[in-house]
Amino acid sequence: LTWHEYNFSFLPAVCFVWQIAMIILFGVFIRYNEESSPFWIEHRKANNISSDIENDFYFRYPSFQDVHVMIFVGFGFLMTFLKRYSFGGVGFNFLIAAFGLQWALLMQGWFHSLDYSDGKIKIGVENLINADFCVAGCLIAYGAVLGKVSPVQLMVLTLFGITLFAVEEYIILNLIHARDAGGSMVIHTFGGYYGLSISWMLYRPNLSQSNRLQGSVYHSDVFAMIGTLFLWMFWPSFNSAITDHGDGQHRAAINTYLALASTVLTTVAISSLFQKHGKLDMVHIQNSTLAGGVAVGTAAEFMLMPYGSLIVGFCCGIISTLGYIYITPFMEKHLKIQDTCGIHNLHAMPGVIGGVVGAITAAAASEAVYGHEGLINTFDFEDAFKNMTPTRQGGHQAAGLCVAICFGVGGGIIVGCILRLPIWGDPADDNCFDDEPYWERHISMLFIPFPVAVFHNTPLLNRLPSFYHLYLQKHQLMNFPFCDILTQQAS
Amino acid sequence: LTWHEYNFSFLPAVCFVWQIAMIILFGVFIRYNEESSPFWIEHRKANNISSDIENDFYFRYPSFQDVHVMIFVGFGFLMTFLKRYSFGGVGFNFLIAAFGLQWALLMQGWFHSLDYSDGKIKIGVENLINADFCVAGCLIAYGAVLGKVSPVQLMVLTLFGITLFAVEEYIILNLIHARDAGGSMVIHTFGGYYGLSISWMLYRPNLSQSNRLQGSVYHSDVFAMIGTLFLWMFWPSFNSAITDHGDGQHRAAINTYLALASTVLTTVAISSLFQKHGKLDMVHIQNSTLAGGVAVGTAAEFMLMPYGSLIVGFCCGIISTLGYIYITPFMEKHLKIQDTCGIHNLHAMPGVIGGVVGAITAAAASEAVYGHEGLINTFDFEDAFKNMTPTRQGGHQAAGLCVAICFGVGGGIIVGCILRLPIWGDPADDNCFDDEPYWERHISMLFIPFPVAVFHNTPLLNRLPSFYHLYLQKHQLMNFPFCDILTQQAS
Amino acid sequence: LTWHEYNFSFLPAVCFVWQIAMIILFGVFIRYNEESSPFWIEHRKANNISSDIENDFYFRYPSFQDVHVMIFVGFGFLMTFLKRYSFGGVGFNFLIAAFGLQWALLMQGWFHSLDYSDGKIKIGVENLINADFCVAGCLIAYGAVLGKVSPVQLMVLTLFGITLFAVEEYIILNLIHARDAGGSMVIHTFGGYYGLSISWMLYRPNLSQSNRLQGSVYHSDVFAMIGTLFLWMFWPSFNSAITDHGDGQHRAAINTYLALASTVLTTVAISSLFQKHGKLDMVHIQNSTLAGGVAVGTAAEFMLMPYGSLIVGFCCGIISTLGYIYITPFMEKHLKIQDTCGIHNLHAMPGVIGGVVGAITAAAASEAVYGHEGLINTFDFEDAFKNMTPTRQGGHQAAGLCVAICFGVGGGIIVGCILRLPIWGDPADDNCFDDEPYWERHISMLFIPFPVAVFHNTPLLNRLPSFYHLYLQKHQLMNFPFCDILTQQAS
Repeated sequence: LTWHEYNFSFLPAVCFVWQIAMIILFGVFIRYNEESSPFWIEHRKANNISSDIENDFYFRYPSFQDVHVMIFVGFGFLMTFLKRYSFGGVGFNFLIAAFGLQWALLMQGWFHSLDYSDGKIKIGVENLINADFCVAGCLIAYGAVLGKVSPVQLMVLTLFGITLFAVEEYIILNLIHARDAGGSMVIHTFGGYYGLSISWMLYRPNLSQSNRLQGSVYHSDVFAMIGTLFLWMFWPSFNSAITDHGDGQHRAAINTYLALASTVLTTVAISSLFQKHGKLDMVHIQNSTLAGGVAVGTAAEFMLMPYGSLIVGFCCGIISTLGYIYITPFMEKHLKIQDTCGIHNLHAMPGVIGGVVGAITAAAASEAVYGHEGLINTFDFEDAFKNMTPTRQGGHQAAGLCVAICFGVGGGIIVGCILRLPIWGDPADDNCFDDEPYWERHISMLFIPFPVAVFHNTPLLNRLPSFYHLYLQKHQLMNFPFCDILTQQAS
Repeated sequence: LTWHEYNFSFLPAVCFVWQIAMIILFGVFIRYNEESSPFWIEHRKANNISSDIENDFYFRYPSFQDVHVMIFVGFGFLMTFLKRYSFGGVGFNFLIAAFGLQWALLMQGWFHSLDYSDGKIKIGVENLINADFCVAGCLIAYGAVLGKVSPVQLMVLTLFGITLFAVEEYIILNLIHARDAGGSMVIHTFGGYYGLSISWMLYRPNLSQSNRLQGSVYHSDVFAMIGTLFLWMFWPSFNSAITDHGDGQHRAAINTYLALASTVLTTVAISSLFQKHGKLDMVHIQNSTLAGGVAVGTAAEFMLMPYGSLIVGFCCGIISTLGYIYITPFMEKHLKIQDTCGIHNLHAMPGVIGGVVGAITAAAASEAVYGHEGLINTFDFEDAFKNMTPTRQGGHQAAGLCVAICFGVGGGIIVGCILRLPIWGDPADDNCFDDEPYWERHISMLFIPFPVAVFHNTPLLNRLPSFYHLYLQKHQLMNFPFCDILTQQAS
Repeated sequence: LTWHEYNFSFLPAVCFVWQIAMIILFGVFIRYNEESSPFWIEHRKANNISSDIENDFYFRYPSFQDVHVMIFVGFGFLMTFLKRYSFGGVGFNFLIAAFGLQWALLMQGWFHSLDYSDGKIKIGVENLINADFCVAGCLIAYGAVLGKVSPVQLMVLTLFGITLFAVEEYIILNLIHARDAGGSMVIHTFGGYYGLSISWMLYRPNLSQSNRLQGSVYHSDVFAMIGTLFLWMFWPSFNSAITDHGDGQHRAAINTYLALASTVLTTVAISSLFQKHGKLDMVHIQNSTLAGGVAVGTAAEFMLMPYGSLIVGFCCGIISTLGYIYITPFMEKHLKIQDTCGIHNLHAMPGVIGGVVGAITAAAASEAVYGHEGLINTFDFEDAFKNMTPTRQGGHQAAGLCVAICFGVGGGIIVGCILRLPIWGDPADDNCFDDEPYWERHISMLFIPFPVAVFHNTPLLNRLPSFYHLYLQKHQLMNFPFCDILTQQAS
């Protein structure tokens, strides 16, 4: 094995070993919960549940599937915008999400779903949703380093990311008792700063912004719109997936729907306002239109009110688009943070706004607005927290936001250090944003330049400039039988 | 500001001002209804509702999400078929739908969901579905003028379209008491004629059918199939989204599923029959296969019977495909109506058929077929209409259809007049069907012709025909550093 | 009519006649069941059903829509990977699925939903799901012959495929009393061997593997990923769509979710391990990642346990990917089976594994694991089968698997014979994998080679090699006005 081959053989080893570890850990720890085991019937009768339809499955499965689409198609296709990194965008997203959700089931299970009577984690549909949420944090981080890391690095990023996420989430939701239905803090703020810190640690000084591959082509932009739209449409499901049955899910969906609609208009306005000739930029439309969904995450289940949701979306569309115009270039130039997808503008900043909005909305809560029972249910003022007041809850929300930022930045720096070790087979600067190092490239018709097809095997070829020959050699096209028809006709 | 710049600065202004207006109006008028507010728990207890699962959210949210996908991915991607207008197709669809649904919540709310006790509109998931429906009418109209109007014109089209829709819907559903579950009349007939009338008012005599950009390329046709399929698959949800709980939703879904299946076969048959060598035309497959869903809209919740649905679909596949072959060219040539997407064949005509089918099915209803309670529930023969008979209901349905046509044609002519004002920055004939005037175009690899990469910076360039130079100048490629590798190798 | 024209006029005739036959048969046989008819209200009261939400529609409709997406977008886009057969992949998939589901409603209805009191088939949402399942078997078979058959042949393949499926399913599920929630045996094993046998009968000795069109281009691979991801994400809905209400659906979804996640990692590992330089192959990522969903189909509703699901997925990822690397070329070379999409590796082999896993899991069932009532419910040990034991059930499962293989192979050979008749207008070897014979090709910008645009209408054209002229003539480009701008500028 050469050093090069050694690096590449890493990926199969990591996949195999980690998957086997998952199987063993699942064997030791993971079991069905009472709603997904055959004892459901007895459980139903014992608890006077009148119908199978009250199984949590029917409350949450449609939302789960929407979230699942966001994770795999939404995030995956959003990252296909690069002209020559579409395979990597959607393919590695697929790989790390599939690994991450298994590890998340374990990590989150230990913290949240451990049955102390037998030491097993009992899972149901809510655990699947939470695992997808947990994965989302790592996929956000992937956006910052898209095109600049190897798949093994992504697996490491995910392993640590999920671990940090589970700890952070436990601290924020259980110890601090902050509420965060759509994960503005837990998912987006954490994931955003985690990715940005890693990108900072992996700074590549010679990777010019004008890299010939760091851009889109017409159809890769249309592919990315598939990702954008599925994220945009299903965000109401994301924010309402694990909120309270009944009005909680209902209200979270409405608030998110409205915030997103409002964001689209201000994104278009700012994009057009700051562009030459009032033109729109696909980068903004693909990304900033989603910022409202991020920012409304924490407060979605609160009484944010419909107009409140519109205001949050309004502001986020403006801020996020300005971020793409001013902050991303600034960060690259002065802070040495290269943020391929602009996750700072789509996740980190709107996530912080979402945390602040959540804190304010919680602090402003009152029995007049929520009703007595409604207030208790919405903020979970029960058991150890039954003496909590809304004002204090607002403080706890703010504390949660700080924890998310600290975990993101701190964790990112540590994991970034690990990823700088020269053993992970990361691509050279010249190979960044290119599928070539990691994907088998079948000779592509679109990539066989037509003159090759025409002039190939003819005397005219010899009269072409010499670097044309070099081009053919470099791409191993000299003896490629792609112009069989043409030559058959000529002979 | 030059006149040109003034036109483009319109878009940000319109987006900002209208969004701020939405926020103010939402602040004054829109509140959560009892199923999405924290008082749901108390409401539940007061009304003896046994479980959270009986919240309307769980009856309608899966259908809502399907409809949402139809609006944004379905309509959006269906309009990406043009070779150079994919950004505009999916992007402007996104913009006007996001604005339209906010305005629709208000307009429909005033007519249907106003709580007279406090003057507020109370919204829940059904309002979100209705807002999406309302938006659909305007997106249909967009199909007729695709590629020929500016985004500001689209915003104006949407503002008036939603307003007209809400009034028309109130007249048809409440005053006339017609039933229209899937909106054959209210949505498709209205939207179709609204768009066609506008297109007639905006007739461009010098816009040749053979415009070099008014066509598709291979992959843009595949993108459009994404739109087609999501519309086709989720149409059962569209037609059943706001029908009665229980058998109403169930039956509407079955009828729509069957009608659509039948349409596919006759579309393929007619497309193959009328094409040279029996080939299929993508335009027909992308559009006419959906006509059955439109035509079964009104009658979907009635006892149309499975074979009835198949018959409706059968006829519509034939009529719609023939429309693309004969009527669209006829309308362009003789009626001065340029209908880019052929909405006459996909929405207007099948919508009218749907209205007629609905009237006949309603008139033929009887207690023998529906049962006593079933008849009352299905046709809502209650309160002021408790003495209604099926035969008279059939007449009311027909009256509803007339109202839809009148509002469509009349509204379209008026709005068309407004859109003819020379202030909206509409594209010149040469810029029609081109993303270039409205979207920032990053230099695209697919658009950098290979010979440029090969011959660039070489003496050979000088020996190329002079218009080749002109081409390079026109596209500002003379000094573009895209062939860095090649030239590096050559030097 | 020439012979050629006669062949093509077959398609319209087949579509018309078969669709009319469907209408007649639906008229005679198909009615709404008690949950989708207006008598639901009376049925509800008579059976003490407390709420509309207990209508089967609400248990199964979200899963139905997911399955529907898998059939039309999943299977359809998975088959767009060929560089010049994307229209045929997604378009013919659309056609045969739309026909197949109607015929399946009838065939399955006669076996499973016939109401003997009036001789009618009573349909509801479960029938729609089963019809989609039935269609899936034929779409799998289509994968083996993709690009090598005419649409009429596909219609014949579907007609017989659905018929065989319904008989086979009746034998396996009702007579043998095997359980097969996700259809590992009934759908995938049958469909896989059915398609492979047909492909064997239609062997084309001169169709080289290196056919210039039998491969993908960059963006066609990205399109195929849309299919892959929608299949992957919604497979939990597929396997849980018709399982028992409550824990049955819940558990099936969890097991499938886990098996699929595990498959992704081993697919990546094997793909990278066996490729030069550790690169990944898109063919494996697009297909083998789905094998776990197939293999967990039968056992998904059993107590397979979470770790059991991971193990099944683990093994299938390995076996399926190795199948693409070794078995597919072997089958083509030595067994004369040309399997375009590799359905042997994605459906046939994992289906058999799924059958075996199901038999083992069933045989190992016990009251300790399932509970008394749980065991009876899960395996349906009622009525004629109330004395069944798990061990015997395991034997019945194995018997079911054999029936599926026999029907697949036997049926495929017979239908293959029929399809060899020289009357179906199948494409010549040269036209395989090409949309050209069946789809109207609008001149495509991507396909107009740039030099044509540059040199066209200039003296230089005359100095190009003569086969260049031939190329232009062949594609009828000699007088095409695509370089209007250029020539206008030049003149």
